[in-house]
Amino acid sequence: MAEEIKRQVYLDHMANTPIDPRVIEEMLPHLKENYGNPLNFHDFGAKTAEAIEEARAKVAELVAAHPVEIIFTSCGTEANNFAIKGIARAYEKKGKHIITSAIEHFSALYTLKDLEKTGYKITYLPVDNQGLVNPDTVCQAITPETTLITLTHASNEIGTLEPIAEIAKKIEGKGVLFHIDAVQTAGSIPLEVNELGVDALTFSANQFYGPTGIAALYLRKGTRILPLLLGGTQEEGRRAGTPNLPGIVGMGKAAELAKLEMDQRISKLVPLRDKLLKGLQEKIEYFYVTGHPTQRLPGHASGYVRFVEGESMSMFLNMEGIAISTGSACVSKALKASHVVLAIGVNPEDVHGSLVFSLGKDNSEDEVDYVLEKLPPIVNRLREMSPLYQRHQGG
Amino acid sequence: MAEEIKRQVYLDHMANTPIDPRVIEEMLPHLKENYGNPLNFHDFGAKTAEAIEEARAKVAELVAAHPVEIIFTSCGTEANNFAIKGIARAYEKKGKHIITSAIEHFSALYTLKDLEKTGYKITYLPVDNQGLVNPDTVCQAITPETTLITLTHASNEIGTLEPIAEIAKKIEGKGVLFHIDAVQTAGSIPLEVNELGVDALTFSANQFYGPTGIAALYLRKGTRILPLLLGGTQEEGRRAGTPNLPGIVGMGKAAELAKLEMDQRISKLVPLRDKLLKGLQEKIEYFYVTGHPTQRLPGHASGYVRFVEGESMSMFLNMEGIAISTGSACVSKALKASHVVLAIGVNPEDVHGSLVFSLGKDNSEDEVDYVLEKLPPIVNRLREMSPLYQRHQGG
Repeated sequence: MAEEIKRQVYLDHMANTPIDPRVIEEMLPHLKENYGNPLNFHDFGAKTAEAIEEARAKVAELVAAHPVEIIFTSCGTEANNFAIKGIARAYEKKGKHIITSAIEHFSALYTLKDLEKTGYKITYLPVDNQGLVNPDTVCQAITPETTLITLTHASNEIGTLEPIAEIAKKIEGKGVLFHIDAVQTAGSIPLEVNELGVDALTFSANQFYGPTGIAALYLRKGTRILPLLLGGTQEEGRRAGTPNLPGIVGMGKAAELAKLEMDQRISKLVPLRDKLLKGLQEKIEYFYVTGHPTQRLPGHASGYVRFVEGESMSMFLNMEGIAISTGSACVSKALKASHVVLAIGVNPEDVHGSLVFSLGKDNSEDEVDYVLEKLPPIVNRLREMSPLYQRHQGG
Repeated sequence: MAEEIKRQVYLDHMANTPIDPRVIEEMLPHLKENYGNPLNFHDFGAKTAEAIEEARAKVAELVAAHPVEIIFTSCGTEANNFAIKGIARAYEKKGKHIITSAIEHFSALYTLKDLEKTGYKITYLPVDNQGLVNPDTVCQAITPETTLITLTHASNEIGTLEPIAEIAKKIEGKGVLFHIDAVQTAGSIPLEVNELGVDALTFSANQFYGPTGIAALYLRKGTRILPLLLGGTQEEGRRAGTPNLPGIVGMGKAAELAKLEMDQRISKLVPLRDKLLKGLQEKIEYFYVTGHPTQRLPGHASGYVRFVEGESMSMFLNMEGIAISTGSACVSKALKASHVVLAIGVNPEDVHGSLVFSLGKDNSEDEVDYVLEKLPPIVNRLREMSPLYQRHQGG
């Protein structure tokens, strides 16, 4: 008797994307044959250096930057830590005030909290109930001591695309640098650093079908930064450490593919996302979408279900082979109420019902149907056990 | 007419080792199929988490530690930065004095210089002309404000094995923590954290035939540390960032192989190293060994050639297909006189003649013979063009 193979539906692409087989193909020869240290004067090193520079050019092209403006790091978290601390400290003589929003990723938030301990003043701007930062409030928050504005381009929890270009225009000429966390957007939507008007931008290969262990910081030419990792002269002295060659090559290939296939990926993802969001609202009573209804990441569908815990829904979905997220992977096991969902005005008792479905380029409509079939009965079953729900229905 | 294939002899293993094909084999399925974020509640994540913990156990075993004492980082440089800053700051209330040596790697040295800017006092202990730190001077340097001693286990430039266990015994009970940079020793010589008596130890996969982009910090249970990368709860909250799964798995396999094959690798390398050192001294006039004659890394042969530039020798050797190093890869292109070779008392004018040959497990005696055949005529040719040498011979 053949055992039934469990269906596997991966809808957690914001946490990590699978590596594209073409990316692995590109990495393999470098894993196998290419091991010279690029800083040494021999052919082995020269071969590595060449491979790194080729990849850097592709990575730069993804965000329409110059290769010298790309600094490789080991992950998005490192790039965010590096950008915020490195720029803040390089311009410390001017002042110690930074502007950010209430919906930043923990890698930005905790870095800012750390700076607060050393005398920095941080302004945390509110967002509206769709998750949008108001460009005017950014502008108004600037003081003579402000050196840096750091904002997420899109939160992985609610998917809202922030009006970065508009903010950049408003702050033009005010002598303040602008960093964005584009981990969720670079490789997913068209993005050019000059059009956006930013001075620094964090992005990560594992969000666009590249490997984990490699990310990059775009830093506009002429912008000063203090290194986070001190030691060797790698990355023009801005990031010490033996370079992760297979990772860098993988990021290069993933960037190339993302640029090439972006339109086609978006055209596929947007209808899937909208079908999922519509279906969830239709089939689940008291399901509410979080984030902006249309100005959001192509594959991102998020919301909350009242009277049910997100963790419970997520675990029952997992039993059906469906992998989703209840918030930011980086802290999900900490089981704290999401500061992002709270920031858009969701009631604290409802925040724990948050769900994030993040679709990827290889998901199908059939998989969306499968989720829409499996989730409603799970919600019903959990509500039967929920005293909150019983009280609500009784009251 | 068949083109002659250029012989390739890689003798730069201190800068980076090739990845063992068995390590790549182990990484491949994880590159291809394993992409769940280990912090999320689903089977994809659980599979990743399991693979990470299996690898962590193997990495821990290499240094005879407990798995929970292993924190993965992106490179040895990050681990050194993290250990030194993280421990120093966690114990800052006790004092701001750190003891180190004059022959540290730049990733330690520059981190210490950075701490000096924030009020730390650093004692840089001298070494003798074989590169040894004196355990008594370490002990004598301790003050009530000392929180940390950080020393290299073996410098990649001179290969001398430092008397770590002896130092640890001398400082026992003095309430000072002890970190070592074991990037060049872990995986190359037998090493147990309890025998060594250290509280923290940096090691890196790319030094024992694992991939680049992954390293680890051993941190003794109960030792406090402040994170360098802030954000998620990964690595028990000690190092944020999506884990580099293929890298971690690769480091696990490389650690397992290193432990298994260590005796055999050492038995092969020591005679090759000694033959090379002996040959260089016999065949090259004014060649002097740097570092300890016997208490040194198994595959490490270093020295300096008077009246000739190391870079020139290295480039001519490269034309013969031989890859060596003239010092630390991390700064080699900076062309500065090595602080390590200066610290063992070599005359400043001779430091630039430094050469580091680092043998690996796949080098052969034939390759050593090849170097001993090719280098002496290169030296002679260069000396013919050297005014310093001509003056010396004339005088």
